Amino acid sequence: MADEVVLLSFWCSPFCLRVRISLAEKGITYEYKEEDLMGNKKSPLLLQVNPVHKKVPVLIYNGKPVCESLNIVEYIDQVWSDTSPLMPSDPYQRAQARFWADYVDKKIDDSQSKLLLARKEEQEAAKKSFLDVLKLLEEQLGDKTYFGGDKFDFGDIAFVPYYCCFKTYETLGNFKMVEECPKLIAWAKRCMEKESVSKCLPDPRTVYELFVEVRKKFGVQ
Amino acid sequence: MADEVVLLSFWCSPFCLRVRISLAEKGITYEYKEEDLMGNKKSPLLLQVNPVHKKVPVLIYNGKPVCESLNIVEYIDQVWSDTSPLMPSDPYQRAQARFWADYVDKKIDDSQSKLLLARKEEQEAAKKSFLDVLKLLEEQLGDKTYFGGDKFDFGDIAFVPYYCCFKTYETLGNFKMVEECPKLIAWAKRCMEKESVSKCLPDPRTVYELFVEVRKKFGVQ
Repeated sequence: MADEVVLLSFWCSPFCLRVRISLAEKGITYEYKEEDLMGNKKSPLLLQVNPVHKKVPVLIYNGKPVCESLNIVEYIDQVWSDTSPLMPSDPYQRAQARFWADYVDKKIDDSQSKLLLARKEEQEAAKKSFLDVLKLLEEQLGDKTYFGGDKFDFGDIAFVPYYCCFKTYETLGNFKMVEECPKLIAWAKRCMEKESVSKCLPDPRTVYELFVEVRKKFGVQ
Repeated sequence: MADEVVLLSFWCSPFCLRVRISLAEKGITYEYKEEDLMGNKKSPLLLQVNPVHKKVPVLIYNGKPVCESLNIVEYIDQVWSDTSPLMPSDPYQRAQARFWADYVDKKIDDSQSKLLLARKEEQEAAKKSFLDVLKLLEEQLGDKTYFGGDKFDFGDIAFVPYYCCFKTYETLGNFKMVEECPKLIAWAKRCMEKESVSKCLPDPRTVYELFVEVRKKFGVQ
C-alpha cells in the first residue's frame, strides 16, 4: 500500500507553511485539507487528531498524527531522510538552528499580534518592540546566505513563511522593511528563488486583506 | 586537551535540572556554576553567552554555548551519542516525546505560577486549571512505565524535575497529588530510583521554602 500523507492546514498560517515548504523540499505528495479557521468551524478530524491544542498544522502519516510545526518539520526530515536534509548534520549547528527557530516561535507571533492589533496610541511602542525582535534576526543572519550558512535549512524554514506578512507589517505598522531590515529582505528574496518556498507562500495582498478583516473583528480600525 | 563542559545553572530550576539529569545519564563530568537568581545578580558570563534570553541553563562545551533546556538535552544526546540514548530512535516515538516535552514547556510553568501566586479568592480556579494540565499528562502516561514506554527518555526528562515541586503544589494548592494523579506519583518514584534523577533533584522542603519566599516578594501571604 502506498504511503498516505495528509496535512490539516490553514492557507496563510506560518506554522502550516513551514510544513508545506518541508514537504515540497522533500518532494512528497500529500492530501491537503484546509481548515475553516476564520469561520471558527474546526473539523471533527482536527479535534480528533490534535485533542490537546486543537490547532493546525497536523500531519497524518499512515494514520498517525504529528502536531506542532517545528516538531513536524523534524519528523518529516527523519522519515524521509534520504533526500534534501532539513537539519544541519553538525550537532552545534543543529542546536543553533533549533535555538533560532524557537526564538521565532517565542517572539514573533506575540509581538506581531501587538503590532497588527495596536490602536493608534499603542502603535509606536508596538512597532519598536516588533522591530527589536526582527533586528535580532537581522543581526544573527548577518552576511550569511541563509541562517545556517550556505544551505537553506530548518532555521530558514521556521522564519521564511512570515515573508508573506511583510507587506502587512509595513502597511499597518507604517514603516519600510527594506529600510529597517535590508538583510532579511535580501535573504527572503533568495529563499523565494526556491520553488519549495515561492509555490507555497500566498499572495501578500491576500494576507493583508485577511489582517484587515481580523482587525475589524477585534474592533481596531 | 580534555573536553571542557560548563553548566550555568540555578539549583531548583526544572529547566536546569533537565540538563543535569541528561549529563548524569551520559556520565559526563562538568563544571557547575550557580547563578544568583534570587539576588537578581546575573553573572557577566551568563549575559555574554545567552544575550538573547539572559536565562539559565546554558551549557558551554569547549567554549561554545548552547541555550534553552530541551535544545541542550538534544544537543547532549547528539554529542555524546555512544552511550545512554535520551531520544527514542523511532521517528514517530521521537515526535511524541518532543510533543509532550513541548506541552510541559507551554503549560506547566504558566499554570504553576498562577497556582503558587494565587490569592485566596483565585485559589480554586488556579487549582482546577493546574490539575487539568497535570491530568492530561496522567492520561498520556496511562499504565506505561515511562512516558515513551519501557525506557526512561526525553519525555520523562522534560517533566521529572517538577517532582521536587510536588510538595509545594500540595501545600500551597491544598490538595494531595497522590489522590489527584496517582499514576504520575508512581512514575516519579520509578524515576527517582535512577541515580541520575535522585542525585540531581533538590530536597522538596527547600524548594517549598523558596516558593514561600517568592510569594512574600510578590506580596502574597
